Amino acid sequence: MSSGAPRHRVVIVGGGFGGMWAARGLNKQPVDITLIDRRNFHLFQPLLYQVATGALSPANIAAPLRSMFKRQRNCRVLLGEVTAVDGAAKSVTLADGSAVPFDTLVAATGSTHHYFGHHEWEQHAPGLKTIEDATEIRRRVLSAFERAERTTDPVELDRLLTFVVVGGGPTGVEMAGSIRELAIHTIRYDFRAFNPAACKVILVEGQPRVLGGFHETLSRKALEALVKMGIDVRLDCHVTDVQADGVTVKPDGGKAPAYRIDTATVVWAAGVKANPLGKLVAAAAGVEADRAGRVPVNPDCTVGARPDLFVIGDLALQAGADGKPLPGLAPVAMQQGQYVADAIGRRAKGKEPKGPFRYWDKGVMATIGRAKAVAETNGFRFSGHLAWFAWLFIHILYLARFENRILVLFQWFWNFVTRNRAARLITGERADRTGAAPG
Amino acid sequence: MSSGAPRHRVVIVGGGFGGMWAARGLNKQPVDITLIDRRNFHLFQPLLYQVATGALSPANIAAPLRSMFKRQRNCRVLLGEVTAVDGAAKSVTLADGSAVPFDTLVAATGSTHHYFGHHEWEQHAPGLKTIEDATEIRRRVLSAFERAERTTDPVELDRLLTFVVVGGGPTGVEMAGSIRELAIHTIRYDFRAFNPAACKVILVEGQPRVLGGFHETLSRKALEALVKMGIDVRLDCHVTDVQADGVTVKPDGGKAPAYRIDTATVVWAAGVKANPLGKLVAAAAGVEADRAGRVPVNPDCTVGARPDLFVIGDLALQAGADGKPLPGLAPVAMQQGQYVADAIGRRAKGKEPKGPFRYWDKGVMATIGRAKAVAETNGFRFSGHLAWFAWLFIHILYLARFENRILVLFQWFWNFVTRNRAARLITGERADRTGAAPG
Repeated sequence: MSSGAPRHRVVIVGGGFGGMWAARGLNKQPVDITLIDRRNFHLFQPLLYQVATGALSPANIAAPLRSMFKRQRNCRVLLGEVTAVDGAAKSVTLADGSAVPFDTLVAATGSTHHYFGHHEWEQHAPGLKTIEDATEIRRRVLSAFERAERTTDPVELDRLLTFVVVGGGPTGVEMAGSIRELAIHTIRYDFRAFNPAACKVILVEGQPRVLGGFHETLSRKALEALVKMGIDVRLDCHVTDVQADGVTVKPDGGKAPAYRIDTATVVWAAGVKANPLGKLVAAAAGVEADRAGRVPVNPDCTVGARPDLFVIGDLALQAGADGKPLPGLAPVAMQQGQYVADAIGRRAKGKEPKGPFRYWDKGVMATIGRAKAVAETNGFRFSGHLAWFAWLFIHILYLARFENRILVLFQWFWNFVTRNRAARLITGERADRTGAAPG
Repeated sequence: MSSGAPRHRVVIVGGGFGGMWAARGLNKQPVDITLIDRRNFHLFQPLLYQVATGALSPANIAAPLRSMFKRQRNCRVLLGEVTAVDGAAKSVTLADGSAVPFDTLVAATGSTHHYFGHHEWEQHAPGLKTIEDATEIRRRVLSAFERAERTTDPVELDRLLTFVVVGGGPTGVEMAGSIRELAIHTIRYDFRAFNPAACKVILVEGQPRVLGGFHETLSRKALEALVKMGIDVRLDCHVTDVQADGVTVKPDGGKAPAYRIDTATVVWAAGVKANPLGKLVAAAAGVEADRAGRVPVNPDCTVGARPDLFVIGDLALQAGADGKPLPGLAPVAMQQGQYVADAIGRRAKGKEPKGPFRYWDKGVMATIGRAKAVAETNGFRFSGHLAWFAWLFIHILYLARFENRILVLFQWFWNFVTRNRAARLITGERADRTGAAPG
């Protein structure tokens, strides 16, 4: 594309909300962008729980990265995983050994699950970060009902019909609500040997309230809605062990004696830690990542004394206007992406920077089952149908491709009317063999 | 459900076209049906190639079996694999060891790939029978382009951009056409290091013409359309070896010296053999399955001297009106399913049977890329746009759920206008690691 002098080379690692908005923001700027991701698609993570419960197909919430950037001629998409960052030579190394040089690096690889040091829990309690996570959870949830249809042992039946969601943040609340919806409505008439409505969904949260990042009024509203749906919410309750056939918890903030919940299906929505790229970039800049692997960044999203290294999104640890760290939410990543694109564009053209990054908090929201949600924006809090419509509108708005918007809207409309969930396929492993231990 | 005398127990193994139509046909009949399948969904196999090339999502062509039978109260769905058939005790055994007794058994488990005794070819040349097959082929095709973007070796580039489809039946023709469409239209502007239109799609067929089951006029039309699309069709050409990096073929009906085609992606659409259940049922009835594992059945679809054992669909070997074996097509299976449902219903009510099964041949059709198809019905043959519209109409008509019809129609319309394929996700294995040997 370029002719004459070599252009400023920008390498963006990660095609999530942060990286995508950074790359898009650099459209028409005099730079050459290389967008590196391990996957060939951008994933709309906020709707992943709908894939995990069979309401949407994976492709509905994913957009091929190449497709999104095919007309942006200054952007090249590269499939690969960054395994090393050389701050002195200014290049990143991919898993296949090839090096990609940069003038400016933007690290935006986000976060992954965190099991508080108990890595062995992962096999029994998958988290919800990738398409494969979602189809695996879908497989486990649906297989539990299938096995329930075959069993003749009442104790085993009880275990199979108990679902535990660990973590009462937005993802945990949405997962618990969706599993319950699935059981009491979607598959209501599907089985002959048991009543799906008899299933137990238990939401375990370590703090004294659900949706800890929201205002207390909304936590209360959400709790009320969850209980009304028949979800067993256990607050102030710490998970101390996870096995193939159960979860051990300590109630009363971990001070009361532990007890076991027998269950065949555990979903992990409790902790996240930053992608390992964070530590690599921190080391290259001579700063230290925090315990969760996040990189402390300057007010302009650069790291240490390196104006050429940017870290954004879940990978970054940055204080907001109130002095508290900015939350790991899509809007933060998107705004940081736009901000660094602007900053890099100005530099490439020799202009002055615009000042520090300011997060514009448009609010937070979470759905709880069918047509219920809680939301707050600018101190204004609302819940119920209105919040649900707002949720629906905003999620459709930010879905990456027009086609997906229509497909998702139609499926939501259809599911709302018929209470059906079309995408409840057990795939990946032979469904009849799911009686074996997972792993 | 039943009260008083025990009802006639019908066990149907397989929820494909044959089994599903048999179970549906027995709705309201005084029988208790158990429908056993290894998967929890009915799959519309004729559109599987569209999943393999990213045009549709798996859930669009699958329908949860429980959902389809939830209101048919005389039908119970059981997830499981039948591992033994006891003709004397009249029961089938599932993989978990449990036995399901029957008064009448309908075997309808269809067919799987056949590598002519070369089982080791499977890892390099996946077939197209299951959802996992389709997403695996999708992963391989898309990954080949991704690796092509990264390579700097012109020989490797050539190998990565060569796609071989083995078998010139409807599936092979449709796959070859779709891969070529994908390359020259969908991903046309997606890459920076090479031109996707430079890809080679080679269709290898052992017989002297493609679509061997169709009239010669249509074979010629199809060949013409394939060549016009830029597909390299090699007729009368036998595959003698398949490795990770190439295919060895012998042209001229296997009489000329062998040569190699270097390729990273091979799709197998050449041979099928019956599911192992065929042999079990044949043995229970004291007859012998043919070389492809198909069970020779009586004119009423029963086996040997056993009026209580039915075999239908791809699993059955039955002569048509012309004395030739009926083809392994969805309409044959569906009509046989309806026929045996009627026969069983009559028996359960003590009525006389209606005479032998007669296949009503409504015709055959195949698409070749965008808006082109060939079809024949009642000696009337047509091709081009009209055939394509007929193909479209019939496939939508037979899709199992109303919701899927709308979703598929919309995606087809959208793909037709934009030439986009939304579902081109590389999943299942980390995309950046696909450089490693497949397997």
